[in-house]
Amino acid sequence: MASSQLPFKVNQTRLLESLHASCQHGSAHPYGKDSTETGMARLSLTDSDKDVREWFIESAKALGCRTHVDQMGNLFAIRAGKNKDAPPIMMGSHLDTQPTGGRYDGILGVIAGLEVLKVLEENSFETEGSIGVVDWTNEEGARFPVMAISAAVWAEAIPLETAWNLEEISTGDNTPRKTMKQELDRIGYVGETPASFKANPFAAHFELHIEQGPILEDEGRKIGVVQGVQAFKWFDITVSGRDTHAGTTPLYARQDAVLCAAKMITTANSVAKKANGLATTGIIHSEPGTVNTVAQTVNFSLDLRHTFDEDLEKMIADCVAEFQRIATEDSERGCTVEWKELVDSPAVHFDKDCISVVEESAKAVLAEFPDPASGGKQWRDMISGAGHDSCYTNRRCPTSMIFTPTRNGISHNPVEYCSPEDCALGANVLLGAVLGYDKLRAK
Amino acid sequence: MASSQLPFKVNQTRLLESLHASCQHGSAHPYGKDSTETGMARLSLTDSDKDVREWFIESAKALGCRTHVDQMGNLFAIRAGKNKDAPPIMMGSHLDTQPTGGRYDGILGVIAGLEVLKVLEENSFETEGSIGVVDWTNEEGARFPVMAISAAVWAEAIPLETAWNLEEISTGDNTPRKTMKQELDRIGYVGETPASFKANPFAAHFELHIEQGPILEDEGRKIGVVQGVQAFKWFDITVSGRDTHAGTTPLYARQDAVLCAAKMITTANSVAKKANGLATTGIIHSEPGTVNTVAQTVNFSLDLRHTFDEDLEKMIADCVAEFQRIATEDSERGCTVEWKELVDSPAVHFDKDCISVVEESAKAVLAEFPDPASGGKQWRDMISGAGHDSCYTNRRCPTSMIFTPTRNGISHNPVEYCSPEDCALGANVLLGAVLGYDKLRAK
Ligand SMILES: NC(=O)NCCC(=O)O
Ligand SMILES: NC(=O)NCCC(=O)O
Repeated sequence: MASSQLPFKVNQTRLLESLHASCQHGSAHPYGKDSTETGMARLSLTDSDKDVREWFIESAKALGCRTHVDQMGNLFAIRAGKNKDAPPIMMGSHLDTQPTGGRYDGILGVIAGLEVLKVLEENSFETEGSIGVVDWTNEEGARFPVMAISAAVWAEAIPLETAWNLEEISTGDNTPRKTMKQELDRIGYVGETPASFKANPFAAHFELHIEQGPILEDEGRKIGVVQGVQAFKWFDITVSGRDTHAGTTPLYARQDAVLCAAKMITTANSVAKKANGLATTGIIHSEPGTVNTVAQTVNFSLDLRHTFDEDLEKMIADCVAEFQRIATEDSERGCTVEWKELVDSPAVHFDKDCISVVEESAKAVLAEFPDPASGGKQWRDMISGAGHDSCYTNRRCPTSMIFTPTRNGISHNPVEYCSPEDCALGANVLLGAVLGYDKLRAK
Repeated sequence: MASSQLPFKVNQTRLLESLHASCQHGSAHPYGKDSTETGMARLSLTDSDKDVREWFIESAKALGCRTHVDQMGNLFAIRAGKNKDAPPIMMGSHLDTQPTGGRYDGILGVIAGLEVLKVLEENSFETEGSIGVVDWTNEEGARFPVMAISAAVWAEAIPLETAWNLEEISTGDNTPRKTMKQELDRIGYVGETPASFKANPFAAHFELHIEQGPILEDEGRKIGVVQGVQAFKWFDITVSGRDTHAGTTPLYARQDAVLCAAKMITTANSVAKKANGLATTGIIHSEPGTVNTVAQTVNFSLDLRHTFDEDLEKMIADCVAEFQRIATEDSERGCTVEWKELVDSPAVHFDKDCISVVEESAKAVLAEFPDPASGGKQWRDMISGAGHDSCYTNRRCPTSMIFTPTRNGISHNPVEYCSPEDCALGANVLLGAVLGYDKLRAK
């Protein structure tokens, strides 16, 4: 597909207006004067998530789409094609955010999907099969600590009951933690469609997303043709010691859970550095939590990543061994350590056909914008550092992703930014990829 | 004063019944079958603290005592002596506990004070001056993170307004933190008596307390004649980095506040070890606090102690320098660190006369219980590792303390224990000391 072959383009102004309109629900953390210079705090299944869901459904209905909701609250908007019975090609991402998140992570993919449908609609373009948009519930794993859990249920990688019973992360106070099912019920989004690829199959899944890293920007490129996603696992680590008085208990007589956890966190970083992988502790919490009591229990999260499954396993094995050594040999009277796995996301390799229609579309869209800085080639192959809903759809239907540049590589932060031009370029590549795949499947 | 000189003794059974009756308010963390085999969770100015305050006032009134409350909610119960105008000799400690506290820390001192008054009352014994009991508010510093703050206000070491405005430690959720004044108002304990030694002077202050450490038990002794308290300072440390994505941000590009704090906590422990002091982090909290976001901010508490003021200052200086180095040189793209001092409690040296009446009383009480294990001398001089209300009363009136053994040296833990016999021995030493000082002041 060459440039001339892209029959129409997305409307950049409308795309951005739509994106910022959706961000009125849950905007937070202003950093500039403009009303769009804020971050987001739209945690999954909160009131602001409910509000943006209603906004999404209204927008989709205004386009004449059929909408439905599944048992995990995943929202589907479908524009019928010639062949109404075949599974739709879906453009999907998520509308939930981190507590200190930005306006692009996930949101761009859903809003660009809606914009693609608008372009098709205003051009009265009839696709071979149906085309749709999906908003996946709790992709971030920020509130309920399993990322992309609702796409995982759809893919039958995680049982529905397990997901429904997943509790939100501790709010630190003594109010009981809510489960996903409780919160889905509360906001009225337990739908009737079974959360399963069997009852609700897709022809393909395309996800436009900001890169969330610095590579495209650093190389002066505009589009990442994503080949796959690195492997990662999430753990909830519990270190148990003994609560005693901070003023009367000699150091040698302690079982200090905070000190023990501090050594583990430092060690995980060294293990990751050596292996050329990543280790992150974002959550840490001590009990009973007073200044003058040696902590009895510490919970901390551990997010370990590596491009290759084998290297990730080696990193985990190293951490397990080192944490054990720290707990028993390097914590005075000794602590114990327990590992609980929250997420297991092996390295993902996207579908060849999907990758190829994305690449063709990128070439077509970018043909008009030669950029000397990158020798005229404004796109490149990439591996995603972040996990996405596409990791799970890829298990059940042809899937691939499109990345756009991210200012300073910063994501999961209020200042996260992708320029309007880059958002529109990404949406055009998404449009071209979907139309390309629609032709492909008609054959 | 020899054994024969102690005119009467406390009633051990009644003392323990009274102690456990008071513990019905706020008992928690059962560890055995007996109703007394529990710990306590009676945080200052909570409902259970309100309940035990009412219990205290009723108990004191039943003894014919005059009771009053000061502006910090400190409770005073006074039994009149021959000379009603002279300031009373006070027996004081605290009824608040740690969230996972025991039944003896603080509680024993107040209940023993009431028992002493009961013994005087049932023997119709008229003292030279008045004798009283005081329950100091928020000694633990567990909920409002400044220990002994209300004794400190009485001593005019901390301004009333500062104390009133002190906020509770973060509960981790988004509900606003309550101040001491708000909670004093809520439970109805802002009294009319000015919180000041000037308006409300004492002749002396004696505090019976469990040792909270292992020394008496290890040496087979029964009583500690406390000479003073080691120096300590509490800090709230804030480490600031930048929130970014855990899957897309290379290690070298991070400003990871959790990793930085982990290194600091480990280093503070090394500094303390080298200096033969103590370092403890009991509270640690990260923001925004999700698995897949590098933390932007970490707050952690740091409790540093040493017998000598100069050594404590040296430890602090070492930590300040090391934390700065870690933040700027050992945290990839760098973090910042801020120190906020919460408590400054220099080394305390108690009053010679008070120490001497305690020693005489201990000799008298223990004369009846020679113990071969400790060569017949069942008491010893001690320095307290923990801070106490007495640290502040000592600034404004003659003060000293009496320690009793603590099983396995464990305190700030539900299993904290002092045997009924040891509690009674301590209370008898308190009785003897108060009578001794009453005679002394009459001269
Ligand atoms: N896109 C994104 O930030 N997803 C969260 C899952 C992850 O941590 O990789
Ligand atoms: N007695 C007691 O545990 N007081 C708390 C103050 C301290 O931490 O030393």
